[in-house]
Amino acid sequence: MNNRRRRIYEGKAKVLYEGPEPGTLIQHFKDDATAFNAQKHERFEGKGVLNNRISEYIFSRLNEIGVPTHFIRRLNMREQLIREVEIIPLEVVVRNVVAGSLGTRLGLEEGMQLPRSIIEFYYKADKLNDPMVTEEHITAFGWAAPQEIDEMMALALRINDFLSGLFLGIGIRLVDFKVEFGRIYDPDGQVRIVLADEISPDCCRLWDIETKDRLDKDRFRRDMGGLLEAYSEVARRLGILVDNPAPKPSGPVLVQSK
Amino acid sequence: MNNRRRRIYEGKAKVLYEGPEPGTLIQHFKDDATAFNAQKHERFEGKGVLNNRISEYIFSRLNEIGVPTHFIRRLNMREQLIREVEIIPLEVVVRNVVAGSLGTRLGLEEGMQLPRSIIEFYYKADKLNDPMVTEEHITAFGWAAPQEIDEMMALALRINDFLSGLFLGIGIRLVDFKVEFGRIYDPDGQVRIVLADEISPDCCRLWDIETKDRLDKDRFRRDMGGLLEAYSEVARRLGILVDNPAPKPSGPVLVQSK
Ligand SMILES: Nc1ncnc2c1ncn2[C@@H]1O[C@H](COP(=O)(O)OP(=O)(O)OP(=O)(O)O)[C@@H](O)[C@H]1O
Ligand SMILES: Nc1ncnc2c1ncn2[C@@H]1O[C@H](COP(=O)(O)OP(=O)(O)OP(=O)(O)O)[C@@H](O)[C@H]1O
Ligand SMILES: [Mg+2]
Ligand SMILES: [Mg+2]
Repeated sequence: MNNRRRRIYEGKAKVLYEGPEPGTLIQHFKDDATAFNAQKHERFEGKGVLNNRISEYIFSRLNEIGVPTHFIRRLNMREQLIREVEIIPLEVVVRNVVAGSLGTRLGLEEGMQLPRSIIEFYYKADKLNDPMVTEEHITAFGWAAPQEIDEMMALALRINDFLSGLFLGIGIRLVDFKVEFGRIYDPDGQVRIVLADEISPDCCRLWDIETKDRLDKDRFRRDMGGLLEAYSEVARRLGILVDNPAPKPSGPVLVQSK
Repeated sequence: MNNRRRRIYEGKAKVLYEGPEPGTLIQHFKDDATAFNAQKHERFEGKGVLNNRISEYIFSRLNEIGVPTHFIRRLNMREQLIREVEIIPLEVVVRNVVAGSLGTRLGLEEGMQLPRSIIEFYYKADKLNDPMVTEEHITAFGWAAPQEIDEMMALALRINDFLSGLFLGIGIRLVDFKVEFGRIYDPDGQVRIVLADEISPDCCRLWDIETKDRLDKDRFRRDMGGLLEAYSEVARRLGILVDNPAPKPSGPVLVQSK
């Protein structure tokens, strides 16, 4: 990659570089996958390319329906230009179907349709294992103001509605997903909340409606194999043409355990 | 005790019996103390007598300031007459100072004053270890309606204000406490939320302001000894005269580790 650029932050799945103009950043998608607070780690050659494309697609469509996002444009196979934001230190999770920690925590069976969509907040703190928090903690510690919480919740529900429809149209059930929001300080002093980070199979649970196949990072968490094939399949169904996602391009094959 | 009465429920610290009139119950305070979801268990002869008196005192004072409660009157050393309610399956915790699970969960130092009081809800389910839940879970699963949550929060804050003052007046810092609420269905079809269960050193954290001594169930959780002496001291400072709380009455001695 380009080494003249200043590296702002290296995370588990992405690197942020200084952007070409003030207030912009370059978001670079790596091939690394981590789970269980990075205790588990593996590289999947081509995952970054797929996530860059999938996230580009989703953020562009969200911009079109009026959900404000940090996304400006894709730059190349692994990178996109984004607006720099002040990240709100919360992972906002929307759930439509019971899976993962919700089932464990509340004793509910995986796959159960929730009576209605549920929004959860987790405090971004790897050392604490991203604990679930409530509006009480968020406002008491000043991580976000009450009206910012309301705005994030409203945006999260719009994103959920849109993505549920989008995925349903391509035979996929949107079980749950995680997003991050950030603040942009406009020159006129206004503060705006925009969707930041990424939306990709790394941070969604996507179940094939027919086969119940998992087309997301759970394949890695549960050692099911076929992660790249699953991500490629999501990209393919979204109509995204990825020339060379992985060393062995998998194309439109059905996902199956290795 | 009186065995002709029908036993409705036996919990870890109390027994509920059928009351003398429909819509009433008798709440009997046992001497048992449990912690860590009942993994730890011990009997403290006289604790039930103390908690019955302390809870009577607090519920009476709360009734007087207009906080509706299930409490009708004390019947004897270990028992009180209460209104039967439909318990809302939530433990409502109010915190003023960091202690217990909050410190662990959010990486905060025990004893830190919170920027403002924080209310938390835990789903009453011993099998799941009483998981913390948010308004989202509570309303999605129908455990309480949004306006019931608002009412519980408003009552919890009033109780916190009142108890903070009450304890401050007797040299004790109210660190946190847990309460339960229930529904009473009035004949006219109205549903009212009232404070139920108990308020005693079993479900509060009470720190002596001068000595920092713990005057609550943490003495048992942390094997500090002197539990009965601590509870007696709280009763004594509240002006409650307990004739014979424990086999060896401890009187107004200072709390110290055994
Ligand atoms: N527009 C943006 N401006 C500034 N920071 C951003 C923006 N979008 C995303 N970020 C942050 O960039 C980082 C992306 O890297 P990555 O997702 O690999 O991090 P991570 O290892 O998951 O760590 P984290 O727990 O911080 O998310 C995240 O910390 C994310 O919050
Ligand atoms: N007014 C009331 N009407 C009906 N039930 C009540 C009332 N007040 C308290 N209760 C319930 O009576 C029980 C009191 O017993 P105890 O506190 O020993 O239970 P526990 O072992 O702590 O179990 P739990 O987890 O249910 O509280 C609790 O289940 C409490 O919710
Ligand atoms: Mg991240
Ligand atoms: Mg109880």
